[in-house]
Parts: sequence; structure tokens; C-alpha cells
Amino acid sequence: MMSTRDKIEALRMLMEKHGVAAYFIPSTDPHQSEYVPDCWQRRRWLSGFSGSAGDLLVTRKGAELWTDGRYWLQAESELRGSGIRLQRQGNPGVPSLPDYLKGALGSGEALGADPRVLSPRQARSLQAALQESGARLQLLDDNLVDALWRDRPAASPSPLAVLPVKYAGESVTSKLARLRKEMRVQRAQAHVLTTLDAIAWLTNLRGRDVEYNPVAIAYALVTHDRAQLFIDPQKLTPQVQRALGRHVDLAPYAAVADSLRALGAAGTRVWVDEGTASRWIVDLLQGADLLMMPSPVYRMKSRKNDAEIDGSRAAHVRDGVAMVRFLYWLDQAVPSGKVTELSAEDKLEAFRAEGARFQGLSFRTISGYAEHGAIIHYASSEQTNVPLKPRGIYLLDSGAQYLDGTTDITRTLLLGGKATRGQTDRYTRVLRGHVALARVKFPQGVRGMRLDTLARLYLWEAGLDYNHGTGHGVGAYLNVHEGPQAISPTRDVGDALEPGNIQSNEPGYYEAGAYGIRIENLILVVKDERLSSKERDFYAFETLTMCPIETRLIDRRALAPPERRWLNEYHARVWRTLSPLVDAAERRWLKRATAPI
Amino acid sequence: MMSTRDKIEALRMLMEKHGVAAYFIPSTDPHQSEYVPDCWQRRRWLSGFSGSAGDLLVTRKGAELWTDGRYWLQAESELRGSGIRLQRQGNPGVPSLPDYLKGALGSGEALGADPRVLSPRQARSLQAALQESGARLQLLDDNLVDALWRDRPAASPSPLAVLPVKYAGESVTSKLARLRKEMRVQRAQAHVLTTLDAIAWLTNLRGRDVEYNPVAIAYALVTHDRAQLFIDPQKLTPQVQRALGRHVDLAPYAAVADSLRALGAAGTRVWVDEGTASRWIVDLLQGADLLMMPSPVYRMKSRKNDAEIDGSRAAHVRDGVAMVRFLYWLDQAVPSGKVTELSAEDKLEAFRAEGARFQGLSFRTISGYAEHGAIIHYASSEQTNVPLKPRGIYLLDSGAQYLDGTTDITRTLLLGGKATRGQTDRYTRVLRGHVALARVKFPQGVRGMRLDTLARLYLWEAGLDYNHGTGHGVGAYLNVHEGPQAISPTRDVGDALEPGNIQSNEPGYYEAGAYGIRIENLILVVKDERLSSKERDFYAFETLTMCPIETRLIDRRALAPPERRWLNEYHARVWRTLSPLVDAAERRWLKRATAPI
Repeated sequence: MMSTRDKIEALRMLMEKHGVAAYFIPSTDPHQSEYVPDCWQRRRWLSGFSGSAGDLLVTRKGAELWTDGRYWLQAESELRGSGIRLQRQGNPGVPSLPDYLKGALGSGEALGADPRVLSPRQARSLQAALQESGARLQLLDDNLVDALWRDRPAASPSPLAVLPVKYAGESVTSKLARLRKEMRVQRAQAHVLTTLDAIAWLTNLRGRDVEYNPVAIAYALVTHDRAQLFIDPQKLTPQVQRALGRHVDLAPYAAVADSLRALGAAGTRVWVDEGTASRWIVDLLQGADLLMMPSPVYRMKSRKNDAEIDGSRAAHVRDGVAMVRFLYWLDQAVPSGKVTELSAEDKLEAFRAEGARFQGLSFRTISGYAEHGAIIHYASSEQTNVPLKPRGIYLLDSGAQYLDGTTDITRTLLLGGKATRGQTDRYTRVLRGHVALARVKFPQGVRGMRLDTLARLYLWEAGLDYNHGTGHGVGAYLNVHEGPQAISPTRDVGDALEPGNIQSNEPGYYEAGAYGIRIENLILVVKDERLSSKERDFYAFETLTMCPIETRLIDRRALAPPERRWLNEYHARVWRTLSPLVDAAERRWLKRATAPI
Repeated sequence: MMSTRDKIEALRMLMEKHGVAAYFIPSTDPHQSEYVPDCWQRRRWLSGFSGSAGDLLVTRKGAELWTDGRYWLQAESELRGSGIRLQRQGNPGVPSLPDYLKGALGSGEALGADPRVLSPRQARSLQAALQESGARLQLLDDNLVDALWRDRPAASPSPLAVLPVKYAGESVTSKLARLRKEMRVQRAQAHVLTTLDAIAWLTNLRGRDVEYNPVAIAYALVTHDRAQLFIDPQKLTPQVQRALGRHVDLAPYAAVADSLRALGAAGTRVWVDEGTASRWIVDLLQGADLLMMPSPVYRMKSRKNDAEIDGSRAAHVRDGVAMVRFLYWLDQAVPSGKVTELSAEDKLEAFRAEGARFQGLSFRTISGYAEHGAIIHYASSEQTNVPLKPRGIYLLDSGAQYLDGTTDITRTLLLGGKATRGQTDRYTRVLRGHVALARVKFPQGVRGMRLDTLARLYLWEAGLDYNHGTGHGVGAYLNVHEGPQAISPTRDVGDALEPGNIQSNEPGYYEAGAYGIRIENLILVVKDERLSSKERDFYAFETLTMCPIETRLIDRRALAPPERRWLNEYHARVWRTLSPLVDAAERRWLKRATAPI
């Protein structure tokens, strides 16, 4: 196996051959996926950094990896000895990749990149930065990493499955009709979809090409009289072909290139999202009248219909049962000394798998004991695995895919002994932030960014914060991260929240080398009928997640009466919902765990 | 005098003559001023709407005025009978001006506009919108409104005054050196300044060309070896010429055109803010290498230095004395039945004028009794003036310019009798929002937008809100509205808050036809030493305004203990600071007004 240093040296030789002074390897794939199929995990293969977000730049003499606060500790450890420098994205004083590029290349030099994994917006921003020093962007049709990667995995041949309308809540015909209506408003003759979850939603299909995300690698092209799905024919079962029927035509994955070229040549008005389509796609459309706007499918998908909402509620009850059974088991098992981060993770998956409609996990479980909890996207491995001792703090962030919904829950547990005053103080601040967001009422038109602060306020009061957003959108048996809404401090991220949106509510606190705290429930935006008026609707959050929140870490005196009331009411609801569904011993545990404080 | 309908008809004839199907009359002037000198108050003259913000579009058949929530009630009343339709900017379903334009003009038709009062960004956005229907933007060198406006006031010849360094806190030489350093970072050879307060700040000059804003009409041009001020020579006193000395060269106002043309012809790299410079300026610079970014002067100006901060604190003490004397007088005088909105306004100005270093008001006082308080930027007039009765709610928003600082304060008073339960409920929600913002601690890097929500939370809990931002920047003996920071819900408004920024904290609630509530103090961003660490600074707000907050409107049971504590501590500070500075009767009143609740 080549070392990271060897791989980078080999890449430099290829760069030399192609006449580029630097090469850009983003973490994404041709579909701008966050979770990338193995065959496209080029950045991971080249750098050794396995986090889900991080862009790599290799120059003649150096190599730099940009990743955000969730991954700094992990990247530090995985990049050790690689010669790759970590750029802590978002830290004051750390240049963005475009800012870094302004000085990195000389006049006349080129930065190479694969147009399939670059959005047009990214390409423009790189180009603008390079121009400042007279350098330029050179798009290379061959991916230089693929040329080095001998044992690169093949693309997955997994078959597609049809999601029944009783779960999807809307037929493909109806979804296509709504999409075409939006297209007519914008006078678009064609709409290109490149993001896999949007395609899965539109076609009521689910795939197994990407770990944790029930999607298949495909492109979709919708005109007013035709809808085409470009996909590997191996994936098509007779059932899928029957279900798509006369609404959607099927074509091989690679055929998208010719179809787009034809649209371009005909000067068609094509709606394509420059934020998620690749530069390659846009180049194929040369000659088209491009309407560069986010796809309306994102927003349609994020507004869950009644069937999706009911399904999600039901999935959360089953997920809560698995969590309660697991937490009871954990309480019993930890003192034996035989439970480890990895075995706990497996046990929880086993409990989940016993539930109806289980389809797998929705992301790799974060099972972080003590200091591992401070690594925001920690993934335990044979190398890092440790036993869970009956003391200290354990952070467990996990979720599952069910036919009727997607879950994502984080609990922070005191495994035994007594918490330090610092730990209860921090835990209580995180909890108060969580409760503030769960309780807020807000008018229509408010973006999640305007609510993010509520979750941080009590940490800020103590000079503390966390380096990640507070909430992300969650799909309905789809990706555990979806847009366009978010509850994030980042400028320009997140559309206005709308009824039917499912978001996470997950403030945290991380003490590097010591412990991590995060409390996460999923919350559904609902209309608040009492507060709404003719002039303006008001919204509230309904908490979907059903699982006790650790009370042994709470500094009870620091809770304000409405916060305590919220917690007790939540626990009463969890008790009412889950107690009939677990066995007697688990029920006794649940009674204690949901007792009013 | 021509009626609005006559003026618009006359304008349509000129439009016809110039071959444009519509004409755009923004409220701003060649310096993108918010407060516009009389000679440039074209939108006011033409439409009759006197609010400070509002853009007018006249088409062949219609006329539309866009203004934001602060002005809806005022505009409704002032536009009555004019034939101009009000577009309630920001209301769901109301198109923006560019959105409106998409359908308003036919193919081949033109929208006329004066390039002096259009920013390049605005011009682009209009152009893009017009293109959708095949229409275009036609820049007309003659302003069509000026051609109709016979009694148009002449430009002001008021002399400039030098602001002594003991108030400004920094010499012009030092400011120019800092500006040039920023220019070097961006490799800019020249920097054009067009906003009047930025020019006043840079040159330590103050003028009297604009009501309430101590600025003079001018342009400034800074290169690495020269600084030029383009200004009417009539305004220059020997003292000003001596003060500018060898650091700043003087040239006539109109000479800026030739200087910019020369920069353009030489291909100079010129830094110009496309958000505030006019399209006319940018056109003059044709051939230049334009660096389109906000001027660094805005941020330098917004970070008040120690002299400005000390001055501001001192000005607020004097302003507080005037307010206390006025409020005591008001308490005595209202029962006589002789006090009106206008006489109260005059009386308050008289009290302020007795204070040292008073230079005039910082904006037109809003003196709104009962339902007038619900008109967010109400200006009482002979037509609307009413007596203040010893009952009901009175909203008073006022401020002054002092040599050492600018003030802006709003108090909502119960003039007698008993408030309704609804009034105390709303007032208390507004107060709680005010206190939440005043008390917040936050890390460096936080934009005001992320704090805006805190001031609305308790209104939202009752399905209520207010249609304006929570805070704006305030100058140091400069404009009462300044950027680049703001505490506003609007996307893209407001840079990160920094120590030395002065912002207003002014949540409100408006019950149309009944009463208005607003509680406004100015707040200074200060470093919180206790919370700051090596990794990250934390900030807090110091409240500068010194004046009791009406307690008779508070629903005391609704205040949380930390809110009550904040109010009592604030009142104790107001008492300690102001009680030695007022007479015995006023002191007795102040004692009661600041008594702990």
C-alpha cells in the first residue's frame, strides 16, 4: 500500500505531466454528495483523512486540507506524518481556499481540477482568486487521482426499490406535475437534477449506492412532455420498471452527456442549480439559455407531506424503543467492564434492527467515551476503541433509516460516579440551549439562522461555544442531511423554515481531551394555530425524537421554571408513548429516566 | 402649487419626449445619502411622501412607491389621492421593485433613470429585471424631475467646521495612513469616497448641508501620495484650510469628474464601493481597474476610539439630563391640557440646547401620542398635532448632535390613568426583548443579525412582531444611522460586531390606530475581559443612554429575575449619574422614576 506521502509524490508527477502547478481534490463527487460512494472517495484515499467534509489542495511543494470545526481533532490525528497541513476552516485568520490561492500560484501557472467534481460557482470563485496573481484554472477531463488509484472500487450495482405511496405520500405523477408548474413559472423548458436525494424523492425510488443514504447514482432530466432517469440498467428490477411506467423514461447513466449536449445545441431554456450541478454538466449545456437557480425539488422535498410526517412520527417511536432498550442494557452492562465503544455501537444497531421497517443506519454511529466525545464526528475503530467505564461521560450520536422515516439522535450519558461541577455546568447550558430552540415560536419568513443563537446563548454567557451548526434538515427515509433549510450561523445558509420541515436541534460543548456533550432531537416545524392570524402565520417546533434526556448531568438550580417544565412535559410524553412498548425491566428503567425533576 | 397628479402627468410628458416608458426616482442623492439635502429631495417633491426611505416608479399609466414597514401608515396617509400605489416592501407577496419591473415594461421599452442617483448594483439589478421582458435601462444625463421642479432649493453654502482632535481622537494624517495601509493590502492605487459621513470622518470636518447630519456635500479621492477633497469653495473657512494643510488638497466639487476620468484613462487600480458610489462615478472611471468593495473607512469609522467613546458617554450624560428635566416638566405640564406633540418636541429641544456642546438634533423628533405612536417614523405637523392628554401612551423618539457624540433615545410613557392589560403585556414583552439584547454576551465574529432575534422572542411568544430592524449603527458626532454593522433580520445586512461599535437597541410594538411602543437605548460593544480567552474574545454591550425607562407600564410578574435585576441596576446607574446634575424637584422625580421594582 502506498503511503500518503508516496501518493502525493506520484500525483505531483502527473501534475507535471499535465502542466499544472497544483491540483484540487474536493471531497465531493459528480453529484456533489456529502456522503460519497467508495468509488469516488478520492480525497480520503489520497490524504488518509476520512471525515465527510474536507477539500485537499496539492501544490508542487505543499499540500493543504481545509475542513470545518467538526473535524479538526480527527484531521489532526489522521493527517499526522502525511505532510499535509490542516487549514482550520472558519477559524479567525485561516484563509479560505480561494484566499489561499491568491498567493499560492505564480503568473501563468495553472490549478488543475476535474470539472465533474467542481460546481460552476466553485470554479468561478477559484478562477477569480487565481486571476489575482495571473494564474488560471485548468479543467482536466481525466481525474488525476483515478489514474493513481489502482484498487479503486467499482460503482455499486445494487438494485433500486420502489417506495410505496403509503410512505411517500405522493405519486411520481403528482410530483412531476408540481415540478412542471414551477418550471412554467420560470419559463424553463427543461430541468436537470443531479443531486441523488432529489432524484430519489422525485421518482419515489430508493437505492443502496451510498452508505447510509438510500439513494442511487443517477441523473434526471425533466421537460414538459418527458421525464428521463439516467441510471445503470443493472439496477432496474421489473418492479421498478413497472412503477415508473409511462411517467419516466429510462436511459443509461452515461447517456446524460448526449442529452444535455442536445439541449444546449437547441438553445433550450434549462433550469440547473449552479450550487450542486457540476461544471461538467454546465459545459455540456453550452448554447442553452441557463436558468441558474436552486432546484424547486429541494424545497418540495423538505416540506414533508402528511404521510411522511405520520411515518416520521411512527419511525421515531420505534427508534425510541430501540434507544430505551439499549440504554437500559447499557446501564446493566457497563459495570461488567466488557462494553466498548464499538460493541455498544453494534448492540444499538441490533436493537434498532429488531424494529419494523428498519433499513439500516442513517450515518456512522458516533460512540465516543470521555475524550473521544470531544471529536465532533468521531468514528470509533479498532485502533481507537476503548471500554466504557462506569464513570465519566459518553456521547452517542446515531440514527437509522426506516421505510417510513429517518432518525438522528444524540444523548450524552453519565455512565456512573459523579460528574464534575464543570461537566454539569456545561451540560446544563447545552440543555438550556436545546430547550430554548425546542420552545421557540416564530413567524413565517424566519430563516433558521435567526434561531441558531437561541441554542448558544447560555454557553456564550460563560464564554463558551460550539464549532458547528445547531440544526440540519433531515429527509423522509432519505439523507440525514438535507437542505435547503438549516439552523446555522453561517451567512447565506438556510431558507425560511416552513411547516413540514424536519430539522435537528443539536447544540453541544466539547472539551478537547476530556469529554463531549451534545443533546440532539429532531424537530418538526408545525403551524401554531393559536398564534397565527389572518396577517401572519406563526410556527412552532414539535419534537419528534422519543427518548429520555440524561437528567443526572443537570444542575437543577440553573434551570428556569419554563425550562424545567419543558423537560418534564417532554419526559411525560416519552413515558406515555414508549412505556407500553417495552418489557417490564425496561419500563422500570424508563420510569426512573423520565421522572419529573 | 402643482398637485402630485399634475406633477406626475408633467413627468409623463417628459418621459414621452425622452422616449422612456417609465422613470425611476429613488429617494437618495448622488451620495446615496439616507437624509437627503433639500435640493435633492426629488421623490418627496414629486410624490408628496416625506418619509426618509422610499423609491418611486412612474410608468405611462401608473405610479408605485416602495417603502418599508416603518413608513406604511405614513405613506398611506400622504399618498391619499395622489394616484400613487403603495408597495409594502418586505410584506409577503409584495414584489420587489426589480420583480415588479419584470412584467411592467414591454419588449423594446426603456426605463429611464439618472445615473447620479443609481448605484451600479441597483443599475445591474434593474437591467437584469428589465431584460426578462426584452426591456432595457436608459440612463439619462438630465434629471427629469429637476426639469419640472421650478422652485428647487439651491445647494447649501454652509461653512465647514473643524472637529478638534480631542473629540475626533485621531488626526487626519493618521486616518489617511491607516486608509492607505488598507489600500496597499488590496493593491489599490486610488480610493474614491462618495458617502458624506465617511468623508467627514476622514477629514475631521463637520458641515451643515444636510438636516440633522453634520456633513458637507463633497467627494474625496485618496491616492498614495495625495488626498483631494472636492467641495464648494464657499464652504472653506481659513481655519478649515489651515487644518487640512498639506495633507488634503482642495478642488471644486464638479472637478471630481475630470479627476476620475483621468484615473480611468490611466488604467489606475481604483477602489470604489459599488454599494454607495453612483453609476455615474463608475462610468467616469471607465478604463480603470476597478476594485468594487465597501470602503474600509466605514469599518474604521464604526470602531470608535477612546476619545470618541469617552465623548459619547459624556454626551449621553448631558442628553440624559435634558431628558430627565423634560420628563419631569412633562409630568407637571400635561394635566394643564396645553402640551401638544409639537410643543413637547420643542420643549425637549430647548432642554437639550441648554446642554454644553449641543449642535442640533440628530433627526426629526418623533412625538407621537396614542395612535400616532403606531406610525413608526411619525413626524407631527400642524395638520396632525394633538394635545397630550393625561392618559394613554406617548412615544417619544429623539436625539441630538453634540460636539462629542450623537444620541438617539426612545421612551414610551404612560401619561396618566391606567394602562390596559394589553398595553402592559406588550410593553413588557418589548422591554424583555430590550433587556435580552442589552445583557447578551457573544463571541467575536457574530453579526448583529444573529442577535436580532433576542429582541423579538417575547413578542413572538404572543404571535406579535415589529416591522423594523432592532439596531442601527450610530456615529460619533456624525450620522445617527451608519454602517456597516446593524442588528437586523435582513439577510446580508450587517458586519460582525466589534468593540467600539455603537448600535441602537430598539425593539417595538405597534397597534395601528391605537398606540405605539418602543424602548431605545444606545449600546456600545465592549470586550468582556472575564469571558475572553486566548482562543477567542467575547463581547458585551455597555448601555450608553442615561434615562429612566417607564416602569408604570410594566407587568412585573412577567419579568424574570435577571430581567428585573438588569432594570434595577440600570436605574441605579442612571440615578447615580444624573441625580447630582439636576435640581431638587427634578431629583425627587428621578428618585421615583428610578426606584427599584
